[in-house]
Amino acid sequence: MSPDQLRDADRARIIHPYLPGSVTERVVMTEGSGCRLTDVDGRSYLDATGGLWLAQIGHGREEVARAAYEQMAKLEYFTSFWEFSNDPAIELATKLTSIAPEGLNHVYFTSGGSEGNEAAIKMARYYHHRRGESSRTWILARDKAYHGIGYGGGSATGFPVYHEGFAPMMPHVSHLTPPWPYRSELFQGQTATLTDVTDFLIAELEQRIAEIGPGNIAAMIGEPIMGVGGMLVPPADYWPRVREVLDRHGILLILDEVVTAYGRVGKWFAAQHFDVRPDIIVTAKGITSGYIPLGALLVGDHVAEQLLADHGFPMGYTYNGHPVAAAVALENLDIIEREGLLDRAVEIGGFLHRELDAQLGDLPIVGEIRSVGMMLAVELVADRATREPLPMLQPLLPDVIRRETGVIVRDCAHSLVLSPALIMTEGEAKETVAAMRQVLERVQPNGELRG
Amino acid sequence: MSPDQLRDADRARIIHPYLPGSVTERVVMTEGSGCRLTDVDGRSYLDATGGLWLAQIGHGREEVARAAYEQMAKLEYFTSFWEFSNDPAIELATKLTSIAPEGLNHVYFTSGGSEGNEAAIKMARYYHHRRGESSRTWILARDKAYHGIGYGGGSATGFPVYHEGFAPMMPHVSHLTPPWPYRSELFQGQTATLTDVTDFLIAELEQRIAEIGPGNIAAMIGEPIMGVGGMLVPPADYWPRVREVLDRHGILLILDEVVTAYGRVGKWFAAQHFDVRPDIIVTAKGITSGYIPLGALLVGDHVAEQLLADHGFPMGYTYNGHPVAAAVALENLDIIEREGLLDRAVEIGGFLHRELDAQLGDLPIVGEIRSVGMMLAVELVADRATREPLPMLQPLLPDVIRRETGVIVRDCAHSLVLSPALIMTEGEAKETVAAMRQVLERVQPNGELRG
Repeated sequence: MSPDQLRDADRARIIHPYLPGSVTERVVMTEGSGCRLTDVDGRSYLDATGGLWLAQIGHGREEVARAAYEQMAKLEYFTSFWEFSNDPAIELATKLTSIAPEGLNHVYFTSGGSEGNEAAIKMARYYHHRRGESSRTWILARDKAYHGIGYGGGSATGFPVYHEGFAPMMPHVSHLTPPWPYRSELFQGQTATLTDVTDFLIAELEQRIAEIGPGNIAAMIGEPIMGVGGMLVPPADYWPRVREVLDRHGILLILDEVVTAYGRVGKWFAAQHFDVRPDIIVTAKGITSGYIPLGALLVGDHVAEQLLADHGFPMGYTYNGHPVAAAVALENLDIIEREGLLDRAVEIGGFLHRELDAQLGDLPIVGEIRSVGMMLAVELVADRATREPLPMLQPLLPDVIRRETGVIVRDCAHSLVLSPALIMTEGEAKETVAAMRQVLERVQPNGELRG
Repeated sequence: MSPDQLRDADRARIIHPYLPGSVTERVVMTEGSGCRLTDVDGRSYLDATGGLWLAQIGHGREEVARAAYEQMAKLEYFTSFWEFSNDPAIELATKLTSIAPEGLNHVYFTSGGSEGNEAAIKMARYYHHRRGESSRTWILARDKAYHGIGYGGGSATGFPVYHEGFAPMMPHVSHLTPPWPYRSELFQGQTATLTDVTDFLIAELEQRIAEIGPGNIAAMIGEPIMGVGGMLVPPADYWPRVREVLDRHGILLILDEVVTAYGRVGKWFAAQHFDVRPDIIVTAKGITSGYIPLGALLVGDHVAEQLLADHGFPMGYTYNGHPVAAAVALENLDIIEREGLLDRAVEIGGFLHRELDAQLGDLPIVGEIRSVGMMLAVELVADRATREPLPMLQPLLPDVIRRETGVIVRDCAHSLVLSPALIMTEGEAKETVAAMRQVLERVQPNGELRG
């Protein structure tokens, strides 16, 4: 098909997520290499989003394609239900438990993050059910959380747009205030210190637990750094103190590390960055850098013990333990290791942060620049003093930046967020920031673009 | 790792679906070709289940691995959210709508059946919501249905084991009687004709709609032939008559064709076999023959029109429109077409059915042998006259058959089910049935095995 035929067919046939029928533009990607993409018209793009925050090793790595080919030609698939297994899945489980935080020695495979969060919620409830505490069904989550779009995880997701028109959602979810220090109005005033923020959130958590009753609560689920919320970095003491409260009440902690795991924050897992011990970690995305759909839950020994009791854990996805996905993940993790991409995430992420500070820090619409490793956000405001959010008008800023410069960034609420491949060069980092400056310096406090 | 090391690591690390910790056996597959599999000890198996009912083209097809390699090396992934797309996804959408039943001209991609059923339920509710009928939230399903294990689809699934310990499930689901003519006690007596069965089910459907109120019901979801229920084949007039009732009340029909689509029943879709017009078809499995995780929803024009209104459909999976998955699906569908596997499913399925009749029909524990295309079931009974189900004792019959003969079949409730690759030879069909006979002829009415 010609470029125009492809675009026509796309418009006529495909329902894209979050794309109204009124939008006719299509960007049809055909090639990728490193941080660069090429579309069907031959235009080149610099991908500063890493796909959907997952291309840790960058695009177009032939050695990964080779690993997929070899496994697919040998054994493309057989079920991993019951006593059936396959060698790449076992090798991957061995690898994952070798890099996981202590005590998380069991693996349950999925095909992605949404499936993973469905499974994690079921595991948490099942754990208590098997232990004779069937009343523990409530899930604590946070506003601005994103836990995918299954009916379970989607109920924990904390944005009205993901519930409107889809309800009734799964019952027994309660949303808390997100750890978003910059939005100090959430914490009774701009002058709050980070300690005040955590104090507020911990007090709210304790109060909520008392209201629902600890004997009715299965788990709290949270992204260590909230992604769709806008790369919200909590105070350093937030997760350890949350863990302490949950422990006191027998409540499990599920960390949704779909975005943060596998090097994005400079460690294998953000749990290690925040020095917190979860009962379940949900992962996907970076486990294969997106080369093939895969997810994996890392499960605590005490949880696994309950799941493996009686008739086992009665939940399985068709592609559980998919051998090709496992082979691709093994190659991807090997690349992350042998190319030192955990350290690289800290280095190039730090460089990118300093560039953002240097090039954008003086713009009146830039309220806060925050990051951990290769998760970065530039929060935009109408007024730096009041921190009033910048109105986000059409065309959206990421579209303007892409059309003008070929650099792809993303917006999350009132922030522009970056999550490039961990192999990004300093030159590409500078190019990204220059593209953002070119547009942002023309944005007025009312959101309108000059020129 | 050695075979023993692999098994040890598996036992220590992997949580398999439906496998208790007390079971120590592991069958670690390492190679596949056609209908044959080989495990880590070099033992050969005949796969009469097609993995999990999906290996339409058989195992180990090098040309599919080649297609995956080429796409992965060129563009492994970029998001399909918003206006982004890629050429293999567009080509696949074009292919799918060219083989779909009339009026289903839109495609929404997922990574599997569970994700697909979550999406279908959301689409149905959203359709009514956008049309101003937000009260239409109820989903009609059936007992013995299997719609995956997300919290949405899992709520529509009609087995207690998939709800126990996981509740509260998604509200507003109501389960009807399954179309299972052999279980005539469901329909007030053994002498019921197929017409009586449909009459009963349609009357129940009408009554249920009246009870809930048609203005509160979004959709009915159903597998055209119920898989996990035991390959339950409805009377020929069931689906057309269901459709007529739903139409009269403005209720959408979602066909869950995760198992039945892409040739399994001898047509691209079971909707074509039953001559029924659904509003949404959910597919996965056979779309890639399991070579890579993928699912696709085929969406009616009137539904798509609503989903594309306003801000579009606010739901997206990371791997939506995955280019490698699309490239693999295109190669798989091309193989099905150029090797004539739709016709082949009817031919070899018919042969297999006749072999089952000839070799097992005389056994007192065999109650009914039923099939459509390459979905076959042998329902086991303690007593042919009363149709009392055969007690299913440990070790389960599929385990006995596999250990004794190397043939892999599956049990679903009190049936043994077959869903081999569509390329199965007559020799392999005979081998499958001979293996079943070798074990089944020794099974006593109390479920115990002689010898």
